[in-house]
Amino acid sequence: MASHSITELIERKRDGGEMSSDELRWIIGEYTADRLPDYQMSALLMAIFFRGFSDDELAVWTEAMLHSGDVLDFSHIAAPKVDKHSTGGVGDKVSIPLAPMVAACGVAVPMMSGRGLGHTGGTLDKLESIPGFRTALDPPEFRRVLNQHGLVLAGQSETLVPADRRIYALRDATGTVPSVPLISSSIMSKKLAEGLDALVLDVKVGRGAFMKDADSARNLATTMVGIGAAHGTEVMALLTDMSQPLGREIGNAVEIDESLDVLAGGGPQDLVEITYRLGVEMLLLAGVAAEAVEARRRLETAVSSGRAIEIFADVVAAQGGDARVVENRSLLPTAQNVHTVLAEQDGVVTTCDALALGLAAVRLGAGRARKEDDVDPAVGITIECKVGDAVAAGDVLGRIAYNDPARLASALPLVAGAWRVGGEATPPVLVIGEVRR
Amino acid sequence: MASHSITELIERKRDGGEMSSDELRWIIGEYTADRLPDYQMSALLMAIFFRGFSDDELAVWTEAMLHSGDVLDFSHIAAPKVDKHSTGGVGDKVSIPLAPMVAACGVAVPMMSGRGLGHTGGTLDKLESIPGFRTALDPPEFRRVLNQHGLVLAGQSETLVPADRRIYALRDATGTVPSVPLISSSIMSKKLAEGLDALVLDVKVGRGAFMKDADSARNLATTMVGIGAAHGTEVMALLTDMSQPLGREIGNAVEIDESLDVLAGGGPQDLVEITYRLGVEMLLLAGVAAEAVEARRRLETAVSSGRAIEIFADVVAAQGGDARVVENRSLLPTAQNVHTVLAEQDGVVTTCDALALGLAAVRLGAGRARKEDDVDPAVGITIECKVGDAVAAGDVLGRIAYNDPARLASALPLVAGAWRVGGEATPPVLVIGEVRR
Repeated sequence: MASHSITELIERKRDGGEMSSDELRWIIGEYTADRLPDYQMSALLMAIFFRGFSDDELAVWTEAMLHSGDVLDFSHIAAPKVDKHSTGGVGDKVSIPLAPMVAACGVAVPMMSGRGLGHTGGTLDKLESIPGFRTALDPPEFRRVLNQHGLVLAGQSETLVPADRRIYALRDATGTVPSVPLISSSIMSKKLAEGLDALVLDVKVGRGAFMKDADSARNLATTMVGIGAAHGTEVMALLTDMSQPLGREIGNAVEIDESLDVLAGGGPQDLVEITYRLGVEMLLLAGVAAEAVEARRRLETAVSSGRAIEIFADVVAAQGGDARVVENRSLLPTAQNVHTVLAEQDGVVTTCDALALGLAAVRLGAGRARKEDDVDPAVGITIECKVGDAVAAGDVLGRIAYNDPARLASALPLVAGAWRVGGEATPPVLVIGEVRR
Repeated sequence: MASHSITELIERKRDGGEMSSDELRWIIGEYTADRLPDYQMSALLMAIFFRGFSDDELAVWTEAMLHSGDVLDFSHIAAPKVDKHSTGGVGDKVSIPLAPMVAACGVAVPMMSGRGLGHTGGTLDKLESIPGFRTALDPPEFRRVLNQHGLVLAGQSETLVPADRRIYALRDATGTVPSVPLISSSIMSKKLAEGLDALVLDVKVGRGAFMKDADSARNLATTMVGIGAAHGTEVMALLTDMSQPLGREIGNAVEIDESLDVLAGGGPQDLVEITYRLGVEMLLLAGVAAEAVEARRRLETAVSSGRAIEIFADVVAAQGGDARVVENRSLLPTAQNVHTVLAEQDGVVTTCDALALGLAAVRLGAGRARKEDDVDPAVGITIECKVGDAVAAGDVLGRIAYNDPARLASALPLVAGAWRVGGEATPPVLVIGEVRR
């Protein structure tokens, strides 16, 4: 590949110009190979923050990232390979019941998840609250579990998209995270490197989400669906509510508990609805169902027959976890103490703030303020009342399961402001929109 | 000083917010002390490129840079201390005759100059074409020459404004050079660290200058004059033409030769005029003349009396140079060969492109394409015809003094396009405007 002047490329992007495919591939290649210093990359990222990418630039940049490391190939598996990705929220444990439900319908789900950071939780942290469960699988083990069970629930291997790992760390330190092209290329390069046939995106909208309003969420979703189209992979996105937490549990073991409720045919209505809506889209993109009604029926059968929860138990066991938790939830870690949050007045819950409750859960120890922090699997927040619920003064709004009184004390001010009770309110619309190719 | 989160500060500037004085001083302090990584500084610089600085931010940022190293103090010298700074041009040897003329009028001139880079020449390179002349003086020697002669002609010491040295190198590599607040804080921090009573700026305008049009030059000048006012130093700026080279010589020894012409009472009209205009402003700001007519007369007397050229010879000798060059120009290095550029048609010179001729001089070896390049003191370009001059086909437009035929060959295409002959043209206005506090 020809050599380029990085300073000239930074200047061109700074002035609103466009880079050629060769130039973009050169940048990603040089940066991954440690031949481009961080200080030039960070200046370029800030210029991209201000100037954006054209559609062509974005497609090539994502493609170059995707090819910066290993690209998985599951073509030996006959079943369609489909994954789901959420942009992150509070109480968003959807992946955990969803993946086995979809796998039970004949779709291979090579699910790669992340850890929690900031107020959003991470599927890996939740899964690891199951005693013994290992999410760090080497490629042969990842492949073996997927082959055998049609499902694997793991972290992303170090060899997948190394460019993203380095660029993300740099963005995190240089104020260049909230850029739609940089976010979407980061997400899509990782997902497309999984060798998927199709991908369903859950783009969260609201206070507890990265995107605070529907317009910016739709913009991000449209961008990611466009990248998928350029790559030749079927991608669609649902825009779903994250103004209040999803389901009733925020934490790690408590979210596994709630996920098992869904797999057992129960669970809170909003969580169940989002899980099925995403599952329907996955089955449709996979081509295993021709229309939504049929897809939904198949997912319901996967649950009612016990096939979905059985697959989950098998995968837990295959990944070293104690599969008895499926039948005996008391094997999950529990916190020592519970603090109850009460309503101070009669009325209707007008706010149940996902951001405040997510941050409170981090302070309890359920999440990470910094990447290197440890997570306490047992602590969490249980939400008893959500927006639209009528309450009387003294009713329980929520319960805080904690181990360390000092951590409870630091979380309480956030919890105190999370619920507001007023005259009237209706629950938020769950699915705000969708974006298809 | 309190600690701050650099990532938060980058984000705030990125989003158009303002930083406090404490925060700005912290950034410069941490960066100079090597506690702030280049990759965060470069992202911040790019955010500043897009968002700029408020007047308050700019004043504090400049002040913090200025105090990042030594600040000179010449308060023991009774005479007013005044310097001149040019934003850089082609054939701009003004400092060399100007400084001794002003010194001869009783103003102390602690002149610190730079080296050429790109198409613009550097006063230090020109001075060093005088055999033996040393521009790297340690602080005691700098002070001694200034005390004794009222003039010193040197490079900037390493201990002056180390923050600028580091930030400029980073800007150069990260596409963040052309930012008015970053340019003006870089220039002004260095000049204000010289312990001056007043400063005259020569902001060049046109193809051969950094600022291509009068509006952007006026903006830069206004910004720098504002920084001076905030610091309590008298600063004014002239906006002068750089569409064609200044004077008739481009190079190093050839520019010393032409400078000596001015000091001897001769020299080309445009160079003489700009030198006197800047000198008048220096004398007025210094308070040694009450009005322009008087100031000009004093400068003329300094030249006609021989006092100015005598001071120059004394300073050359004091800094190790061969002062006999003043009387015997043949002691200056000369190139082996001369190539003549001829007019191809009758007419009037409509263009004598400062940028093309400056770049051609670099290719000959008179300047630096890269900082680490050496300079050939002998080579250069002599301009025989400038804009507005009538020429006949076959007349000499210019002469190229060269040592290396390969370098001549690489310069010729640029020289060929530099002159254009057409129907009619008038010489450019020399002084385009001025900015005062």
